Amino acid sequence: MRKPWAGLGLDLHLELSAGPGVRAGLEDALREAVRSGRLPPGTRLPSSRALAADLGLARGTVSQTYEQLVAEGYLTSRPGSGTCVAVLPGPVPEPARAEPVTRPPRRAGSESLETIGFDLRPGLPDLSSFPRAGWLAATRRVLGSAPNAAFGYGPWQGHLELRETLAEYLGRARGVVTTPERVVVCAGFGQALAQVGMVLHHEDARVVGVEEPFLPEYVRDLRRAGFGVRPIPVDDEGLRVAELAATPADAMLVTPAHQYPLGVTLSPRRRADLVAWADRTGGLIIEDDYDGEFRYDRQPVGALQGLHPDRIIYGGTTSKSLAPGLRLAWLALPARHADALRALGADADPAVSVIDQLVLADLIRSGELDRHLRRARLRYRRRRDRVATALAADLPDLRLSGIAAGLQTVILLPEDGPSEAEVVASVNGRGVAIDGVSGYYASPGRSPRGLVLGYATPAEHGFEPALRALVTALIPLYR
Amino acid sequence: MRKPWAGLGLDLHLELSAGPGVRAGLEDALREAVRSGRLPPGTRLPSSRALAADLGLARGTVSQTYEQLVAEGYLTSRPGSGTCVAVLPGPVPEPARAEPVTRPPRRAGSESLETIGFDLRPGLPDLSSFPRAGWLAATRRVLGSAPNAAFGYGPWQGHLELRETLAEYLGRARGVVTTPERVVVCAGFGQALAQVGMVLHHEDARVVGVEEPFLPEYVRDLRRAGFGVRPIPVDDEGLRVAELAATPADAMLVTPAHQYPLGVTLSPRRRADLVAWADRTGGLIIEDDYDGEFRYDRQPVGALQGLHPDRIIYGGTTSKSLAPGLRLAWLALPARHADALRALGADADPAVSVIDQLVLADLIRSGELDRHLRRARLRYRRRRDRVATALAADLPDLRLSGIAAGLQTVILLPEDGPSEAEVVASVNGRGVAIDGVSGYYASPGRSPRGLVLGYATPAEHGFEPALRALVTALIPLYR
Repeated sequence: MRKPWAGLGLDLHLELSAGPGVRAGLEDALREAVRSGRLPPGTRLPSSRALAADLGLARGTVSQTYEQLVAEGYLTSRPGSGTCVAVLPGPVPEPARAEPVTRPPRRAGSESLETIGFDLRPGLPDLSSFPRAGWLAATRRVLGSAPNAAFGYGPWQGHLELRETLAEYLGRARGVVTTPERVVVCAGFGQALAQVGMVLHHEDARVVGVEEPFLPEYVRDLRRAGFGVRPIPVDDEGLRVAELAATPADAMLVTPAHQYPLGVTLSPRRRADLVAWADRTGGLIIEDDYDGEFRYDRQPVGALQGLHPDRIIYGGTTSKSLAPGLRLAWLALPARHADALRALGADADPAVSVIDQLVLADLIRSGELDRHLRRARLRYRRRRDRVATALAADLPDLRLSGIAAGLQTVILLPEDGPSEAEVVASVNGRGVAIDGVSGYYASPGRSPRGLVLGYATPAEHGFEPALRALVTALIPLYR
Repeated sequence: MRKPWAGLGLDLHLELSAGPGVRAGLEDALREAVRSGRLPPGTRLPSSRALAADLGLARGTVSQTYEQLVAEGYLTSRPGSGTCVAVLPGPVPEPARAEPVTRPPRRAGSESLETIGFDLRPGLPDLSSFPRAGWLAATRRVLGSAPNAAFGYGPWQGHLELRETLAEYLGRARGVVTTPERVVVCAGFGQALAQVGMVLHHEDARVVGVEEPFLPEYVRDLRRAGFGVRPIPVDDEGLRVAELAATPADAMLVTPAHQYPLGVTLSPRRRADLVAWADRTGGLIIEDDYDGEFRYDRQPVGALQGLHPDRIIYGGTTSKSLAPGLRLAWLALPARHADALRALGADADPAVSVIDQLVLADLIRSGELDRHLRRARLRYRRRRDRVATALAADLPDLRLSGIAAGLQTVILLPEDGPSEAEVVASVNGRGVAIDGVSGYYASPGRSPRGLVLGYATPAEHGFEPALRALVTALIPLYR
């Protein structure tokens, strides 16, 4: 049903359907109203009880919606002053389509499997769950229907059909505000980062901030591309934006939904601070939304990009949602950067097979990707819960870092126990491959003691034995 | 049957099978004997009659073999002095496998189809003949058999299975001497050229020679990569190596099998000169074997690379043999350059989907690619013949440049007729898209008048009407 919403004294029109769609629709309407300026900054919203009554919705639906938008930075909430519209950096052009946000961030790594007993290193989804039958069926549909011309060189930024599909999907699933003209299909996140580097050079950016801890490969790639790199510390609220502001960084590479590898989420306050930093300094934000589809405890937080699409370059990939071997990634860029890339790469060939592009578009449009993600989310959630339960039962001094999301967590080790290197060696000695977290820091002195646990890496049948082997290896160290 | 060859006073052992394989086997044995130094430079070979009698072969088989190896630069032949072993740059390590050479070069372009009446611009194969059913069947086999680990990040230079298959295929089909460790799988020839650029920078190369006429995109890419570019003229024997030697070029990008776009073949003498240039100056040769699978008048000339695998970087793609939309290409590099690339790109992710890599490997191993190429060769050969016949019948003042090979030719226009621009405008006015050749020259003053005719571009049913429209447009200009 379509009904006008008068509850906010605004002329909001929403497509409302039964079930969870109601909440998503409400969220989206509010998000859009904030973005467009129809709800000006500082506007105090009605109480959740009043708005629920007004709209004929359950109160819980409205209060969850408010919480979600506070987490995403569209609203603010302080005890005693109710819920207000946050200060966003000016009205933003409407997206091609605006649809309900559904989920949060993902990550590229470059670990590869070796034949060891158990592999709990991060960077990989469960490769045994790759939807082979779904991929084959989509390939059959694509090869049966694609026009001959699709097999030619094609546009440098990717086939229009995939870009249209991605623009719609990213809007719906991640709250990304973009259009097909601003989407670029890339051969993996590494190539995406190389394209970002071209944009940064074009804008005379010289120094890029990265969160510490970080993926070492990205720092290496940024340095190779000629940038100075400044590690900025991360705490329980995510990136410490105040420390970023004290550096000469022209751009900031950030994983807001699920920090890699710690797994913390950028807090609403820090989201606002980071966007304000970009606005004040003219800095660029590069959002690496590497595992955005995976959050287990609540509805995912939408992409940071939606808060300021004009200063945030959004990047995503299928490396965690499907498989890294596909080498499929994308950018959603501010219009001027898409234009700059177009000019810099004029006539350049695209990097990704048109068959793969059309297969991905088919998987998204047919709902197959959503079905796959629902299954994967359940599986990974169970695994993370099992890790937590096992530690609580046998290793009460150890705790997990970050939120219930993504494909990895960090097991924080007591500072008065054995050193990280000793623990890693001992665990490896039991046939379990695992990383220490200190390797993700520029200065190991700033690192906590911890193990980065990639709980998605084993195949389903191998997870429980791998966890058992890990726990068995740790117990003698913490008794 | 396996039999020792005593005919040359050498201990040659050959795998000889019935049919055309006998000649291929003889060719390969001679090639290998020359490369390894077992037949020293200057050695005079027995007459074709004597060797044929010795081996129990038809004389034609031996004389065709000699001709082939003269064309490839392994042997020399002068009236009155018989056939001798050419001077090659020292013994070369044996390839992983040496098998009969079968065919010559291909080319990347970046033309795209538009909805005009007829499209005769070069750069595309007949996209309507892409083997969709074969690709799908191979995808089914790959998805049914690939191990889970294949869907991870994988080695930066490509999946071992494809590299093994390519090393064998390039040896058999193009006479390329390489090993899987020296093959790098790339996302299209553009990315391959970018990797070559990294190697050249690593070797402190600054100036790259290109054949004139050339593909403008390559010159642009080389300049963007920071290289000076020197156009070197091409004549009926291909690249004028003497003019190259007068430049400070550190490397030379060349299309020996079928010059793009003129279609001439690098003559045996020039092949030897070019290799000698590399040896004398330490220069690098980059062989762009863009349409090597397509030769119609005789057996293809093997890749230049086999003459000096230590100074020649070989590049190929599926853009002409299958379709550009696949974005699949490869390099076969000298060992030190493969090592350098490995070091420069250590840990970098590969650029091509593992599914596509394994599908291509399957198409090659199953013989499907060979069958597709046989069909395509027949079709393109008929088309080129039809162009020649039509011109001879209706436009006797016009002639075709180059050899009966590849996917394009140049229609040379009389210098005393209308200007090239007038002819192009007139043909375009009849709804036929076609390029003038002068756009492929750095100095249009050095260009002949001509039309680059991409006769592979139309679908099969559209070729004859396109040719008719072209001829009809040209007749009034040359009557």
